[in-house]
Amino acid sequence: MIVARNLSLGLILYYTWKKLLYYLIVSTTIYILHEYSGLLYFNIPSYTIAALGVALAIFLGFKNDHAYGRWWEARKIWGLMVNYSRAWARQATTLIIPNNEAESEEVHAFQKMLVYRHIAFVNALRVFLRRPHDYNVPKQKELFEEDNTYTDAIPFISEEEYQIFRYQNNPPNFLLQRQGEDLKLAFQKGWLSDYRFVKMEETLVDFNDIQGMSERIKNTPLPRQYTFFSKVFVLIHCTLLPMVFITEMGWKTIPIALIVSFVFLALDMVGERTEDPFENKLEDTPLSSLSITIETNLREQLKEHKDNYPPKYESKEGIIL
Amino acid sequence: MIVARNLSLGLILYYTWKKLLYYLIVSTTIYILHEYSGLLYFNIPSYTIAALGVALAIFLGFKNDHAYGRWWEARKIWGLMVNYSRAWARQATTLIIPNNEAESEEVHAFQKMLVYRHIAFVNALRVFLRRPHDYNVPKQKELFEEDNTYTDAIPFISEEEYQIFRYQNNPPNFLLQRQGEDLKLAFQKGWLSDYRFVKMEETLVDFNDIQGMSERIKNTPLPRQYTFFSKVFVLIHCTLLPMVFITEMGWKTIPIALIVSFVFLALDMVGERTEDPFENKLEDTPLSSLSITIETNLREQLKEHKDNYPPKYESKEGIIL
Amino acid sequence: MIVARNLSLGLILYYTWKKLLYYLIVSTTIYILHEYSGLLYFNIPSYTIAALGVALAIFLGFKNDHAYGRWWEARKIWGLMVNYSRAWARQATTLIIPNNEAESEEVHAFQKMLVYRHIAFVNALRVFLRRPHDYNVPKQKELFEEDNTYTDAIPFISEEEYQIFRYQNNPPNFLLQRQGEDLKLAFQKGWLSDYRFVKMEETLVDFNDIQGMSERIKNTPLPRQYTFFSKVFVLIHCTLLPMVFITEMGWKTIPIALIVSFVFLALDMVGERTEDPFENKLEDTPLSSLSITIETNLREQLKEHKDNYPPKYESKEGIIL
Amino acid sequence: MIVARNLSLGLILYYTWKKLLYYLIVSTTIYILHEYSGLLYFNIPSYTIAALGVALAIFLGFKNDHAYGRWWEARKIWGLMVNYSRAWARQATTLIIPNNEAESEEVHAFQKMLVYRHIAFVNALRVFLRRPHDYNVPKQKELFEEDNTYTDAIPFISEEEYQIFRYQNNPPNFLLQRQGEDLKLAFQKGWLSDYRFVKMEETLVDFNDIQGMSERIKNTPLPRQYTFFSKVFVLIHCTLLPMVFITEMGWKTIPIALIVSFVFLALDMVGERTEDPFENKLEDTPLSSLSITIETNLREQLKEHKDNYPPKYESKEGIIL
Amino acid sequence: MIVARNLSLGLILYYTWKKLLYYLIVSTTIYILHEYSGLLYFNIPSYTIAALGVALAIFLGFKNDHAYGRWWEARKIWGLMVNYSRAWARQATTLIIPNNEAESEEVHAFQKMLVYRHIAFVNALRVFLRRPHDYNVPKQKELFEEDNTYTDAIPFISEEEYQIFRYQNNPPNFLLQRQGEDLKLAFQKGWLSDYRFVKMEETLVDFNDIQGMSERIKNTPLPRQYTFFSKVFVLIHCTLLPMVFITEMGWKTIPIALIVSFVFLALDMVGERTEDPFENKLEDTPLSSLSITIETNLREQLKEHKDNYPPKYESKEGIIL
Repeated sequence: MIVARNLSLGLILYYTWKKLLYYLIVSTTIYILHEYSGLLYFNIPSYTIAALGVALAIFLGFKNDHAYGRWWEARKIWGLMVNYSRAWARQATTLIIPNNEAESEEVHAFQKMLVYRHIAFVNALRVFLRRPHDYNVPKQKELFEEDNTYTDAIPFISEEEYQIFRYQNNPPNFLLQRQGEDLKLAFQKGWLSDYRFVKMEETLVDFNDIQGMSERIKNTPLPRQYTFFSKVFVLIHCTLLPMVFITEMGWKTIPIALIVSFVFLALDMVGERTEDPFENKLEDTPLSSLSITIETNLREQLKEHKDNYPPKYESKEGIIL
Repeated sequence: MIVARNLSLGLILYYTWKKLLYYLIVSTTIYILHEYSGLLYFNIPSYTIAALGVALAIFLGFKNDHAYGRWWEARKIWGLMVNYSRAWARQATTLIIPNNEAESEEVHAFQKMLVYRHIAFVNALRVFLRRPHDYNVPKQKELFEEDNTYTDAIPFISEEEYQIFRYQNNPPNFLLQRQGEDLKLAFQKGWLSDYRFVKMEETLVDFNDIQGMSERIKNTPLPRQYTFFSKVFVLIHCTLLPMVFITEMGWKTIPIALIVSFVFLALDMVGERTEDPFENKLEDTPLSSLSITIETNLREQLKEHKDNYPPKYESKEGIIL
Repeated sequence: MIVARNLSLGLILYYTWKKLLYYLIVSTTIYILHEYSGLLYFNIPSYTIAALGVALAIFLGFKNDHAYGRWWEARKIWGLMVNYSRAWARQATTLIIPNNEAESEEVHAFQKMLVYRHIAFVNALRVFLRRPHDYNVPKQKELFEEDNTYTDAIPFISEEEYQIFRYQNNPPNFLLQRQGEDLKLAFQKGWLSDYRFVKMEETLVDFNDIQGMSERIKNTPLPRQYTFFSKVFVLIHCTLLPMVFITEMGWKTIPIALIVSFVFLALDMVGERTEDPFENKLEDTPLSSLSITIETNLREQLKEHKDNYPPKYESKEGIIL
Repeated sequence: MIVARNLSLGLILYYTWKKLLYYLIVSTTIYILHEYSGLLYFNIPSYTIAALGVALAIFLGFKNDHAYGRWWEARKIWGLMVNYSRAWARQATTLIIPNNEAESEEVHAFQKMLVYRHIAFVNALRVFLRRPHDYNVPKQKELFEEDNTYTDAIPFISEEEYQIFRYQNNPPNFLLQRQGEDLKLAFQKGWLSDYRFVKMEETLVDFNDIQGMSERIKNTPLPRQYTFFSKVFVLIHCTLLPMVFITEMGWKTIPIALIVSFVFLALDMVGERTEDPFENKLEDTPLSSLSITIETNLREQLKEHKDNYPPKYESKEGIIL
Repeated sequence: MIVARNLSLGLILYYTWKKLLYYLIVSTTIYILHEYSGLLYFNIPSYTIAALGVALAIFLGFKNDHAYGRWWEARKIWGLMVNYSRAWARQATTLIIPNNEAESEEVHAFQKMLVYRHIAFVNALRVFLRRPHDYNVPKQKELFEEDNTYTDAIPFISEEEYQIFRYQNNPPNFLLQRQGEDLKLAFQKGWLSDYRFVKMEETLVDFNDIQGMSERIKNTPLPRQYTFFSKVFVLIHCTLLPMVFITEMGWKTIPIALIVSFVFLALDMVGERTEDPFENKLEDTPLSSLSITIETNLREQLKEHKDNYPPKYESKEGIIL
């Protein structure tokens, strides 16, 4: 996620220079052919590109609106993760009640285990979501990246649990199943009444929802039939542009066509880069920083000493991952 | 669902060549009549198609926005299916508790039966949704298809249950009714308290919702009054295009009109092909792959051996069904 | 609801011929006056209608988006009716439990009564919603209609109840009140625990919601300030069209103006006809067919013989009401 | 709320004549100066107003979409009021159960008091919402108005309660607090179980929501930064219009500019008049008629005699308040 | 939040004069160079800016729609705060019930403590949200501001609690944790049944949601890739404008270009200023006034004397913070 108000020119050119070069070559070629060759007539009337306007507006508007919709939904889902994580920690510490003073310490350790395993779940889901799909590997190295490995869960679950966890088909779901089994245990020990047991199980269903909604966005791309054609039609439109401009504008065709092409190129690319929010790239939903926020909040609710808190997440060059 | 980032030209032409041929013939005919016959004046001023722009933008924007809305809602609904299936398996294994050690095995078998019948429900609903409506049979053979038959439910319910199941008017709803009746049984045996009984019944209501929402999208097409007219008006617009272009562009009318027509054609067709997500075609919501994900997750929650898991779903030529 | 993919020309002309005739007369008159009279100058420059484009796009986009929004919401509401009806039947048959074997038959009859009265509620609400408002009576006879009378509830409630029912100010709400009173009875008899009693009452609240949401759409038209002006401005725009076309197009003004006017006319009319989904006309939300689906599902859940099921709803000429 | 399908010319002119007069004067002045003075050149090219098109489309689309969004949300909120009012009456009459036959009458009076106080709440909220804000007082007398005073609550609460009620900072919230306190009383008397007590309290939370959502719309105008500029930019656009038209159109500038200006004026004004739904003006959400519907339904649920029902709400000149 | 219907010219110029000056200089320079230098040809045809129209419409529409979406969501969230605060106060006073008359006063004090701590939570969250982010500090002093410090919580919690509170990483979440711990206490004392305990805990989860949703909007800016480019492209568009106008308009280029540039500038800036609703600036969601409303309502529900109420919030120059 970018928080800096202005994007640096370097950043913009890093991702666009190849396409800009193409458009520069196209418009220069058309200018030269038109002016000096005398052989070819490339000029076409301006209403040809006007006629494309409607179609472009719909394809580009579609791509950008829904790319943002996906990104913002991803952020909302992880916002829910923040909210329910805090609720989970409070419920673990206030709804689970020892039968008598003697059990007090055992219950306290049990509460802490539930909260820690939840931090493991948050980290596991982050890692699970940021694994790249084969069809989504970027052609170009990303400028900003972050490590995401399941080992991040080690401090929060037992060694024995970690060994099972890491070989699961769906590791985060395994942790939720474990939480459920431990709630049953607490119920059988009398620390939870029937009603408070089910209340905490309901909070686990909220985490099922959060995980499943995140997986949906991860595994279902914006329909390719839209994103592919928007890319193709921007290419068609911007290739036709210098042919329209050449009749009246002469050499000015080159800079003006480049500027206008850049605007459309930018419009297509910001959609392309926003649409997948879990790919470990600079426009990502900031899962790393949210994981740290959650860990900090939950340790504070457990009344741990501030020294235990993870270090504050710092933005790098106006980017938060 | 298409996951490949680029569509092959072959795929695009397979679905569009007939219409492109029509537009090629129209613009060539107009060009020939205008240039050589000397008999007919087909040229019309450019603002005639500009005047159509507003109407086209609304019809095409409407069709594409709502086609995508239906497709994405279908995906969301089946995302809920994933979430609540995992919750159901956890609830079956943690909320249903034997009265004593002796019942332990019986309860375990009962839990497994509830989870297996749920897998049967998921498969049954997939098949139920992918039956073609009379009015939706495609004129052209689809390039990608998959088998969907009720026999997919056989491994997950008893032979006796299957024989009743297959003759039901609404087979998935029959399975939910059975689940409810078995919950009542568990309540009567004391494995479920009053409160946990109702909690699991609430999860069944979530499945009622998932089924009903899917049926709504399946049985209610995008209003034909919009989709039909958008098709007709693209035809009108693209037929008028070469008449506008002919005055100034001569032979260039043919390629340019074809390119612009292709853009509008694509815009109409991507809407048309996206609007119905349960028709067993390449843009479908990927029910087959989701069914396999759910089965795998649930078997993992039941702690079954990995050999029991269904084989991983593999995309074919960038398509996931 | 139209399910046929193509609308017949007859159907389209039935609803538009009067307005098309008006536009034919307007453009022909302008053509004749301009060409032959020599008295009047009707021609105006093309940017006058371009200037109207923005306003038209907003009014027409508004009308169509929100008309569809109302229609689709109506369909969603009745989708909920399907879902919760199935849930109600399951809850009636599994949550209401006799205290002993002796009450078994009595409880079974009681369960059946609750389910049947619910079918009566579905039919009563359909009839309640399809009564015409004074201000919504169509000027032209509709091509497709269906009978909707309260007598459809007779088979599902007792004669005594029907006599009270038919004189109620709000008959469907009366049936919900009765359901609530019978739940209280079941609670007092011990067939429902405190908790299961309230659970079923919650399902009744869902039906309150479904009824109230349907009434909202029925009783609150799309704001007339928008729909009226959209109609007026299409009229203004299409009346100005031939004045713009006449300068350059001569006799071609007549067919081209008629085609463009038809496009705008269609755009306004599909909105107009979609906006009210409970008026017993061909674009209606298909309440008749949904009522039959619900009755069939509920009888199946009651394990009734297939002969008791209502006959399958068949579409007529591609129309489902 | 307007239910008549056509707006009368008188009504339209009542609200627009001042602005139309302004535009008439502007275009006539420009025509005279341009034609006869020879001193001033007011003509400007048509692409100047085309360049404003984008900005106007966004501002006007914004204003109208969100004005309608507020209005329709207000209607939805009061739709919920209808639904939950019916549920409240049913719950009051079926969930509150006497401990024995002797209390029967006392409980019945208690139930009636809860339902009547709810009718008082509905009326109190209507009055609370329709008090004018200082900054929203219209400059022109409204054509349709209705009385809204707290005395409308008198028939439904005791004299003693009314005396406290009328001096409250927030009278509707006071009634909800009272309902809660009476539920507690019923719980303490044993008429409500713990569980049914909380269920009814949950319904009170729904009323908190309904009140708070209504207050949100009432107290938070559509951001003035949008509505103010849309008004200003329509003024700029329509003042420039005759300067564009004058070059080619001569005297026809006057009627055509007036017509086009009227279209934009209408577009801005329908947004302006729709955005605030609780101001006791003709486009209001129909709170008066909804209050009467609720009172009638609740009296029917209490099985009161039809003579007690309030008189049916009748529309006046196609307007329902 | 602005409530005044008209913005003062001073206010508008305060925020725009620098950019307007830039555009004045650009168009004057182009005019002078074009008219008098004879050296440079700056004129370009009008379709160059028309070609930018599509892209601008999408970027600016995007920015404004989503800026408003964020602002209105913020207002909705704090609307929920109002609703649930009233519900919390009612639940605290009616669901917490002493075991006997003797405890009555103790319980009453306990209830008041819960309600007061909630007022502290509301104020703490307001302060927490209005702390400026490093990357959001405005370049220009704001015209309207308000003090927001944690000391506002002092009157509502004990001195001891305040000392811990102020050193917390997340002070509002600390207060919710405390509320949860006190509910557990009340449960252990028998003032809350199992069921009423969980009901009040559920209301705390609602406050978790409100806090987390507010934090989401605060910490996640509208994607910079959109807002940055919209600013750049308005700059490009408005710099090209005088080059288009200069050919036909001569000196009129200067005022007309300035007017059109102002329209686009305004469109971009209203989005920019609306997008972040928790920055203590004049377009903010009115947290100060809402905090006072909540405090007043809750004191009224506690039946405190009117003298205890905070002073009514008064708008200053048509602004409510």
